[in-house]
Amino acid sequence: MVDLTELMENEVFMAFASYATIILSKMMLMSTATAFYRLTRKVFVNPEDCASFGKGENAKKYLRTDDRVERVRRAHLNDLENIVPFLGIGLLYSLSGPDLSTAILHFRLFVGARIYHTIAYLTPLPQPNRALAFFVGYGVTFSMAYRLLKSRLYL
Amino acid sequence: MVDLTELMENEVFMAFASYATIILSKMMLMSTATAFYRLTRKVFVNPEDCASFGKGENAKKYLRTDDRVERVRRAHLNDLENIVPFLGIGLLYSLSGPDLSTAILHFRLFVGARIYHTIAYLTPLPQPNRALAFFVGYGVTFSMAYRLLKSRLYL
Amino acid sequence: MVDLTELMENEVFMAFASYATIILSKMMLMSTATAFYRLTRKVFVNPEDCASFGKGENAKKYLRTDDRVERVRRAHLNDLENIVPFLGIGLLYSLSGPDLSTAILHFRLFVGARIYHTIAYLTPLPQPNRALAFFVGYGVTFSMAYRLLKSRLYL
Repeated sequence: MVDLTELMENEVFMAFASYATIILSKMMLMSTATAFYRLTRKVFVNPEDCASFGKGENAKKYLRTDDRVERVRRAHLNDLENIVPFLGIGLLYSLSGPDLSTAILHFRLFVGARIYHTIAYLTPLPQPNRALAFFVGYGVTFSMAYRLLKSRLYL
Repeated sequence: MVDLTELMENEVFMAFASYATIILSKMMLMSTATAFYRLTRKVFVNPEDCASFGKGENAKKYLRTDDRVERVRRAHLNDLENIVPFLGIGLLYSLSGPDLSTAILHFRLFVGARIYHTIAYLTPLPQPNRALAFFVGYGVTFSMAYRLLKSRLYL
Repeated sequence: MVDLTELMENEVFMAFASYATIILSKMMLMSTATAFYRLTRKVFVNPEDCASFGKGENAKKYLRTDDRVERVRRAHLNDLENIVPFLGIGLLYSLSGPDLSTAILHFRLFVGARIYHTIAYLTPLPQPNRALAFFVGYGVTFSMAYRLLKSRLYL
């Protein structure tokens, strides 16, 4: 049987595992943020979620949308749209034998940019804060994709 | 050349592969559920999708939203938001050499919780059925992330 | 330390890495398409994004929805819903030792179908163009899931 712990002794792969776990955990906190705003602002989308606040017409007034809840949801969806490519491309990039310091620079920039993106989206900070954070994460992912396709293209 | 079938002889990895494939297949069925409700209830969002039901003004009446279709779409998006972290963190966790029975407990709880979440969302069951299902899946993923970061942090 | 470059000498895995990188890069371009339409059509969802176009009431008129922007966003979300299962199932399938030509056929069909799906969604082409593209990608992913579960089920 192959000793998988050997894979975890590869430094680039370990770094990828750490940064990927951190950014995925951050993304999961967005669910908690949505739930927090829904409960404190009493803004729901499913009738069964606000059943305890009243019956019939009384409950219906909680079925509405709210700027703050929608903002968190957009930040969450933007995370999903950008973290999925990072996971897929980053995993393959980590296995392609890149230079350790280059790889760690990519991972750090991506994780930092996505955390800053969330702060800029939720505060909200004036543009171009959010746009810059988005494009740093976007550029890092394309840089890894470029390296993968340049050195290992096999179609 | 490395014999990759060796990776598939690792029991934790094989278990992860099985559970991940099952929960991803379940998630894909949500697309079919959306399509089913759109067609049986004649609720569409793209004009080209209901072109066969009539022309001009006659077709426009099918471009609307429907509670049931929106409910399936929310369940689908919630799946995506929770299954993506499970895939990323679970893959890295599987490769980090966890105890087999602990790992399988994590995978079973997650897959069971997400299937129950879908049932609770689509029926719909009264709260806190759906909330509990959500938090079991959420807790399992964080438990794997915690183990990964505790034992293998490399920044 | 395990020589990870060996993993990249496995032809099925290299092919998966190439096709996965291509389709993820295509998905990322959807963000650029959304930004392009938002800027050229002046359609925004966050007040801070159109602050430079005017102050107060003058800026509010840009906070609206637009058919073309919503279409790109739906295509992007559909990509996400279908590419995530492909990544997860495809990665595990690649590691399960399939026949090289069968595997490459799966990857090519999926990538071709998703690119055609985007073209059919954004043009838009009349149905059933988009539906067929969707079901080809869907079927390919289920075919890989079926092979994985048939040969390697471990629960």
